[in-house]
Amino acid sequence: MEIGFIGLGAMGRAMAANLLSAGHRLRVWNRSPAPARELAEHGAEAAGTPAEAFRGDVVITMLADDAAYRAVGLAGPVLDQAPPGLIHLNMATVSVDLTRELASAHAERGLSYVAAPVFGRAEVAAAGKLNIVAAGPESALDRAAPLFEALGQRTWRLGSDPTQAAAAKIAGNFMIASAIETMAEATTLADRHGVAPETLLEVLTGSLFSAPVYKNYGAIIAGRKYQPPGFRLALGLKDVRLALAAGEGARVPLPFASVLRDGFLEAIAHGDGDLDWAALAEVARRRAGAAAG
Amino acid sequence: MEIGFIGLGAMGRAMAANLLSAGHRLRVWNRSPAPARELAEHGAEAAGTPAEAFRGDVVITMLADDAAYRAVGLAGPVLDQAPPGLIHLNMATVSVDLTRELASAHAERGLSYVAAPVFGRAEVAAAGKLNIVAAGPESALDRAAPLFEALGQRTWRLGSDPTQAAAAKIAGNFMIASAIETMAEATTLADRHGVAPETLLEVLTGSLFSAPVYKNYGAIIAGRKYQPPGFRLALGLKDVRLALAAGEGARVPLPFASVLRDGFLEAIAHGDGDLDWAALAEVARRRAGAAAG
Amino acid sequence: MEIGFIGLGAMGRAMAANLLSAGHRLRVWNRSPAPARELAEHGAEAAGTPAEAFRGDVVITMLADDAAYRAVGLAGPVLDQAPPGLIHLNMATVSVDLTRELASAHAERGLSYVAAPVFGRAEVAAAGKLNIVAAGPESALDRAAPLFEALGQRTWRLGSDPTQAAAAKIAGNFMIASAIETMAEATTLADRHGVAPETLLEVLTGSLFSAPVYKNYGAIIAGRKYQPPGFRLALGLKDVRLALAAGEGARVPLPFASVLRDGFLEAIAHGDGDLDWAALAEVARRRAGAAAG
Amino acid sequence: MEIGFIGLGAMGRAMAANLLSAGHRLRVWNRSPAPARELAEHGAEAAGTPAEAFRGDVVITMLADDAAYRAVGLAGPVLDQAPPGLIHLNMATVSVDLTRELASAHAERGLSYVAAPVFGRAEVAAAGKLNIVAAGPESALDRAAPLFEALGQRTWRLGSDPTQAAAAKIAGNFMIASAIETMAEATTLADRHGVAPETLLEVLTGSLFSAPVYKNYGAIIAGRKYQPPGFRLALGLKDVRLALAAGEGARVPLPFASVLRDGFLEAIAHGDGDLDWAALAEVARRRAGAAAG
Repeated sequence: MEIGFIGLGAMGRAMAANLLSAGHRLRVWNRSPAPARELAEHGAEAAGTPAEAFRGDVVITMLADDAAYRAVGLAGPVLDQAPPGLIHLNMATVSVDLTRELASAHAERGLSYVAAPVFGRAEVAAAGKLNIVAAGPESALDRAAPLFEALGQRTWRLGSDPTQAAAAKIAGNFMIASAIETMAEATTLADRHGVAPETLLEVLTGSLFSAPVYKNYGAIIAGRKYQPPGFRLALGLKDVRLALAAGEGARVPLPFASVLRDGFLEAIAHGDGDLDWAALAEVARRRAGAAAG
Repeated sequence: MEIGFIGLGAMGRAMAANLLSAGHRLRVWNRSPAPARELAEHGAEAAGTPAEAFRGDVVITMLADDAAYRAVGLAGPVLDQAPPGLIHLNMATVSVDLTRELASAHAERGLSYVAAPVFGRAEVAAAGKLNIVAAGPESALDRAAPLFEALGQRTWRLGSDPTQAAAAKIAGNFMIASAIETMAEATTLADRHGVAPETLLEVLTGSLFSAPVYKNYGAIIAGRKYQPPGFRLALGLKDVRLALAAGEGARVPLPFASVLRDGFLEAIAHGDGDLDWAALAEVARRRAGAAAG
Repeated sequence: MEIGFIGLGAMGRAMAANLLSAGHRLRVWNRSPAPARELAEHGAEAAGTPAEAFRGDVVITMLADDAAYRAVGLAGPVLDQAPPGLIHLNMATVSVDLTRELASAHAERGLSYVAAPVFGRAEVAAAGKLNIVAAGPESALDRAAPLFEALGQRTWRLGSDPTQAAAAKIAGNFMIASAIETMAEATTLADRHGVAPETLLEVLTGSLFSAPVYKNYGAIIAGRKYQPPGFRLALGLKDVRLALAAGEGARVPLPFASVLRDGFLEAIAHGDGDLDWAALAEVARRRAGAAAG
Repeated sequence: MEIGFIGLGAMGRAMAANLLSAGHRLRVWNRSPAPARELAEHGAEAAGTPAEAFRGDVVITMLADDAAYRAVGLAGPVLDQAPPGLIHLNMATVSVDLTRELASAHAERGLSYVAAPVFGRAEVAAAGKLNIVAAGPESALDRAAPLFEALGQRTWRLGSDPTQAAAAKIAGNFMIASAIETMAEATTLADRHGVAPETLLEVLTGSLFSAPVYKNYGAIIAGRKYQPPGFRLALGLKDVRLALAAGEGARVPLPFASVLRDGFLEAIAHGDGDLDWAALAEVARRRAGAAAG
């Protein structure tokens, strides 16, 4: 297929490379030009503007946050020049409100909008093993199926309203952050009673909590190895904010999310915004009076 | 071995039955006599008093909470009549403070005290598949090994201080309660945005959260099937209280545990104390304005 | 003075009337025209557009929230037509971020921007007894002094940066909301132990808590008289959101504000958004299992 | 009257001295003998045991916490030797549960039990200006009236069940702690936006929050003068624990109290347990990344 690709951060680059390997033609754009040039060496075409990339059969976008979508013009100007029938797959994590706004902006112009955010860090993206939650018009999901196959190990189709996928992704990220805070508190508590964090987590991830999220983040927390970040803590605050906003929109109190928000803020106030978001565990340690490591 | 067994609730009965099947001789006692009589039909001897059961090579206790241990006299009177060298395996979930007190009361009398609380509901106990966290004198742990094998699928030896096992068990239960609240908030949020709880949980337990605790409690929450209770919500409040108390003892703030405490209290105030503790999810639903089901 | 006045809700109307009584000439504008017509009968001139009101010596604005300021064009278009030297007194409660943006938009155009939000409900405004916190260029504060005198019983000058006044007002409103939640929890607790809310509050407002905020809101809570609202609960959520946003901007965790946010959301989810914000007390009652009154 | 007095800490000493000045005969007891000797120089009789002091018309007790009451034997042994008709005025802050237990232990022995806890620090006690909340048998309250007059500026009679006074006192202390946390968060927020804590508090205690609790603690917080402590932070944690326990007993979730508990614990973990409990404000500052002063 002829695919536009906008947003070449660590995730976007890995995904774009997989699409090239799968034989698709790519026209790529990124705010800073270096990643586009690099992909051009592997066969992609570098677009001069977002609008130039917003053509072909499908456009995939993978930008950092709501603000980036607005800055690039994807809620308006860029769409005006897009060919009718184009399918836009937004695979980033953005707010439910922006999703609603984008869906209607596309519908007004005869474009298809699919929200298809992904679970997985950059190395998972590189391996083509992402978990994709997708929602949008059925025909668009059908046409996008081969792309999802090239990018992920599994895709869940949640329905025809893109906000469903946005909400599911936001809820999922909230669950990851909650698991991190849970391990942070539990290991701090156990540690103070003579049980090393790695021991506690070995017990629990060897039994009831034998899931990737506990194993991966548990290892980071037990080893206090927050660098290089798989997912930056400052982005974690952004994701919790998305959950709180989605909760406000639907009148859903989220007390755990409120605790997470305060914890991430405290971490950032102590200079840990660029560490992996598992560094939330340092907040629990510090509150309990543990000296910095 | 010759084993005393005190406390024949659903868990205790299943464990005692497994020990009988493994060929051990049991002298059993329970506050209400019916369960002891029933086990007597399968070859156990019914003891008339706790002190009568507190003899032989090993005594296993499985009482409901700290108060029950004190009521039965296990922090004092019963110990005075126990034969020196006796090993007491406390497999229940009790406080760190009581564990410390019991450990020293036993040591003063030349008895061995092992904390060996278990993860698993009654049906897991019946299948001999419990996960056991054990701490106490090394020789006692060695001698108890065949019993652990009869009762559990795996045993983790955490150290020589019984409070280590008590703290690990308390931390683990806190993690389960946190996972329940996390799913409660996440499914309520997703539900309000058009994603059914079972769909969200299918996605997440099929990927990052593929662990028993999420699958089992997730199914209960999605189906709102809180009866019969695998673990009563009122006991869940007790366990969170143990975590908060262990935190206070070691100066560890536990904001998630505080949220859980308020949630369990609210559930009990609404008459749900006898449901499965996954009914914590109903609190999240109610707060978001959902009508009772 | 020749004064423009934009925003004639309950607060704005009362303030504008006081300025007319003090002998000032007013040109007034409101989104819905009725309040402007009514003031015209008392000597004000009705402006056809916001820009028409944005003239003379001073403009006072009293709009509902950030969104209203943007909708009316006060962050841009309206300013372009304003005469250099004009002083804009924003007496509403808006975000720190909008305050910063407005201050610089005015400075760029040679206009003076003063943030001068007020404490007090509509009846306090009508009595000219508002408490005003003001920050902005010193000369502008000096020129505005007679207006503050006509509107309030006391004005605190906080400095030359308008965000100081915005932050102080936001912090103050957070304190009021906290006092309400505090009384909500305390009276629910006491009530369950046989002490009537009015008795508890009589004791405390007759001693340590002898302040207007406890007396006024205490009477509302004890009597459960949330109508008519002095300040709508939905606006209370807005104000807590301003506090949380100001906290995020400066990396200040605010755990009480997080609890308040969840409480206001829960109240709105139960249909209480249009009651007085003291109806937050009903959330505490409901959580404790009390039936609706 | 002939009065026994048990518990001569800073509060008890000041109260006992006032009773002596008012012409009453006192028989005093304290765990460490020095304060009793000192009062003996002013005319009191030093008792050798708690039981010796538990005689006469009235006994007043002022011990630190539930544990001290149990240690001294006031829930049992000491009562057995008391003369029928004796009135026990417990003026300390203890739990609702202990209050219930003491009330019934006294009733069984034909003794009168009155809970009459006080609001006010040691210097307030010395000035005879305490605020007293009293509950117990009406005739006992009548007889105690002249003593209350000697000790306090005002007494509120809440009813005939002593738990009413215990609950009211616990609720009141919770409100004070909440006011401290509220000021802690508000001043930290304002400070980061260029408004000095003393300025913010001057505005608010000069208007809506013109109550002693805000003025006194506000001055401590603004000046960061936590020594000497008027009320030790570690006792603040005890009081919040009493509120949480009273809430659990009556199924009342108390989210603010949960936040306070975590905050006090964090303060103690950082070595501030012996400072004035207004040092809770340092927790808010630290969380926001402020360096220690």
